[in-house]
Amino acid sequence: MSAYETRLLSRANKITNTAGLAPGHLQANLLILPAQHANDFHDLCLRNPVSCPLLGISTQPGSTDSITPAQCIQPASDFDLRTDFPKYRVYRNGKYLETRTDLLDVWDAHQRYVGFLIGCSFSFEDALAAAGLPPRHYSTGRIVAMYRSTIPLLPAGIFTNATCVVSMRPYKPEDIERVREVSRPYLAAHGEPVAWGWDALERLGIADIEKPDFGQPQVFEEGEVPVFWACGVTPQLAVESAGDKIEGLVFSHEPGHMLVTDWKTEDLEGLRGGLR
Amino acid sequence: MSAYETRLLSRANKITNTAGLAPGHLQANLLILPAQHANDFHDLCLRNPVSCPLLGISTQPGSTDSITPAQCIQPASDFDLRTDFPKYRVYRNGKYLETRTDLLDVWDAHQRYVGFLIGCSFSFEDALAAAGLPPRHYSTGRIVAMYRSTIPLLPAGIFTNATCVVSMRPYKPEDIERVREVSRPYLAAHGEPVAWGWDALERLGIADIEKPDFGQPQVFEEGEVPVFWACGVTPQLAVESAGDKIEGLVFSHEPGHMLVTDWKTEDLEGLRGGLR
Repeated sequence: MSAYETRLLSRANKITNTAGLAPGHLQANLLILPAQHANDFHDLCLRNPVSCPLLGISTQPGSTDSITPAQCIQPASDFDLRTDFPKYRVYRNGKYLETRTDLLDVWDAHQRYVGFLIGCSFSFEDALAAAGLPPRHYSTGRIVAMYRSTIPLLPAGIFTNATCVVSMRPYKPEDIERVREVSRPYLAAHGEPVAWGWDALERLGIADIEKPDFGQPQVFEEGEVPVFWACGVTPQLAVESAGDKIEGLVFSHEPGHMLVTDWKTEDLEGLRGGLR
Repeated sequence: MSAYETRLLSRANKITNTAGLAPGHLQANLLILPAQHANDFHDLCLRNPVSCPLLGISTQPGSTDSITPAQCIQPASDFDLRTDFPKYRVYRNGKYLETRTDLLDVWDAHQRYVGFLIGCSFSFEDALAAAGLPPRHYSTGRIVAMYRSTIPLLPAGIFTNATCVVSMRPYKPEDIERVREVSRPYLAAHGEPVAWGWDALERLGIADIEKPDFGQPQVFEEGEVPVFWACGVTPQLAVESAGDKIEGLVFSHEPGHMLVTDWKTEDLEGLRGGLR
């Protein structure tokens, strides 16, 4: 199934979780804010690119089908921000309101909404699987475990009190350097891990590995340790932390229900440019 | 005095501290590493752009006089990485070895050294002064106070255990929002503060505001609180934390002894592009 076909199915509300669809294509997290808050959120992404890696931004405030890539990739086309994610979350004044299958009824042109597409861990997970290091949840079918960490999100404008969400995948200690190498090139998809090993729990402020804040606990095999990556759920918590400093509605994707873009995983490789 | 004239004086070792020289021109922090460590340090900067904002990178490993800008500004010219900073620090295996006025004798062509120019707080300090909010050390003549914080530097390659260094300037609580606004556009020069207020000390792991790890204590006036920015000394501590994972010599500028570039402070404004 092509990326465009999956977007058409999302548009028709015929699919939900996009994990594994259109393999090799980038999937994107979403945040949509009223124009007056867009610069603050843009700064938040630029100051915290590991948890909030920008893939693209609405070309004009209010545009629904034109995204300017933040990375050195082709402009996105043939999609509609309001319909092409299988499910959306709606927030008012930073508080979760409801989940919808599209935004057609709640999209207010006067708000000149600005959409941000943010990199997704599916990209480096595909690379890990291809390298013979598949994430555990590929075989268990569980949702990856996610935790609120104490890593501060460096403040930007109205976003002053958030911390990073991290996702966790178990690996053997002897595989960690390889896991780091394989995920490292995908800077626009959270890149390499932010912490690993059992002593990382204290540094990240995680009380119980068996009690993730989002997703499901992971199955550890003999001798495995937790490896933590920054997570694309972070922007949603940043919105919640801003609370009623946010005027009007904010929209995000429903976790796991991503935009399948025409961009390829390879497009992210070497995006650091410069020396590579 | 022009930026080029100040570089010529540095080249001739006729000046030391560059604070206040060639007003309006960007001054740059420096780190130079052997080629095999350059990608890891490049990733460290891209993953931690608030404390390590990249201004430019050697166009080719080994080049001494050609820098490719990381930002949307003109290529640098008429300078020599080995001589145009007033003073340099030399590290071996991550340990400080000596301070030199140039690198001509220690520059080993076989190491194919790669230089990184990193944004400097002088840029937003000029903007704060122009806005009627001059940093206290402008009037006291002291060196700004810098502290090792507990904010983790997100790991990249061999750089796995460092934390951010923060600089501190006292301001009145009622001025903080304006201070944030004025420094916010200078993303390539640390941007807006990372924390502020007396309760920030605990969050940053700073035991005693009167005992900075670098620089000098600042004078607080009645009712003022500390405001903390990420600091360009961070890369040097990252090098120290990497220890003997670093093969060969690493060079940095001596704090306060910067490269005065031809780039202007205005060149940094709106560099976030996109919506501005």
